[in-house]
Amino acid sequence: MTEANPDTAPAPRGRGRPRDPEVEDAILRAALELFLERGVDGASIEQIAKRAGVGKLTVYRRWSTKEDLLVQAIESLVNDEDRWPTNDEIETVSPHELIERALPSAAEAAASPEFRALVSRVLGSAVSNPALLATYWKHNILPRRRLTSALLERAKAIGTVPENADLDVLTDMMAGAVTYRVFQPDPPDAAEMRRYLRALYRQAGLLPR
Amino acid sequence: MTEANPDTAPAPRGRGRPRDPEVEDAILRAALELFLERGVDGASIEQIAKRAGVGKLTVYRRWSTKEDLLVQAIESLVNDEDRWPTNDEIETVSPHELIERALPSAAEAAASPEFRALVSRVLGSAVSNPALLATYWKHNILPRRRLTSALLERAKAIGTVPENADLDVLTDMMAGAVTYRVFQPDPPDAAEMRRYLRALYRQAGLLPR
Repeated sequence: MTEANPDTAPAPRGRGRPRDPEVEDAILRAALELFLERGVDGASIEQIAKRAGVGKLTVYRRWSTKEDLLVQAIESLVNDEDRWPTNDEIETVSPHELIERALPSAAEAAASPEFRALVSRVLGSAVSNPALLATYWKHNILPRRRLTSALLERAKAIGTVPENADLDVLTDMMAGAVTYRVFQPDPPDAAEMRRYLRALYRQAGLLPR
Repeated sequence: MTEANPDTAPAPRGRGRPRDPEVEDAILRAALELFLERGVDGASIEQIAKRAGVGKLTVYRRWSTKEDLLVQAIESLVNDEDRWPTNDEIETVSPHELIERALPSAAEAAASPEFRALVSRVLGSAVSNPALLATYWKHNILPRRRLTSALLERAKAIGTVPENADLDVLTDMMAGAVTYRVFQPDPPDAAEMRRYLRALYRQAGLLPR
């Protein structure tokens, strides 16, 4: 990864991040690797820049804090938006059908060693580094929670989730169970995770029993 | 904390751990403090011994590995066996009543900053230190899971949990939800955690809706 003297050349635009996808990808990859290897305290902007083969200022020009950079790097690993249903689909397609479509890639992702390492690192820094957790919550978790809530609302409307269910608690139960499961001894492979997610969604009322 | 030259004096008994509750308590306290402050890699036997005011051999005479010591230190924090129902109670008292009895102290424990720090440290070391997680799972989690399963079996027998519920998954959902909840921004205080646990147990079928 080389770049024409990025720290002394003027930024191509007056404000915002100059678009150089190769540089950006290299920084995000380096940030993710270092975060998974060493955690948030072991991943400094300086080390990230070094591993990406760029100068520190090149990183700072794009991300104002390490937390913002790490959260975007994490997002690039998770990167599952292509399998999320749209609002329109949630209104018109059954939750059962939407879950069946998303299940194989969701299981693959949840069973990957990278996901396990990621959650371990994020939760492991919760007390020492609350800023990362807060940013992660806002950018990575909340959008997925809204989606789950919308699916559960829909399932309530068609009667597969009980009318009196507490959807916030049920959302925590679903997300929490997956996290909890991957940290048990002998973490599941993708096939076992598919079976597990099916049982979980059945339990929640999103798949038929 | 002082002790009469523990590393050169012969152990009072031929095998097993000599009983000196004060020494043992000091070591467990030091181990827990260092683990919560610095994580498993930052808590060496040497540092634990130093903080407890004893020699390293005094620690090794009682615990053969750091993981065993840390797990016992963690157990001394959680220490909730006095509020667990007995097998006999599970057979004769309703799950509803047993949950109501346990709920205030369970909520207090789950809402404490120490619990949050503890779970963060244990999960944060899951990838770098699988031995601690494995020992924690066996000694701290499994006994509680068996208890939850027994309560859920009983609730199934009396009909408040559906006959076709997957109890392993439901147990993960309950434990996972609590973990997941304490890592959300603005973690709950004890009063909010009581409300939360009630909603969770209702959702699971262990409290009436």
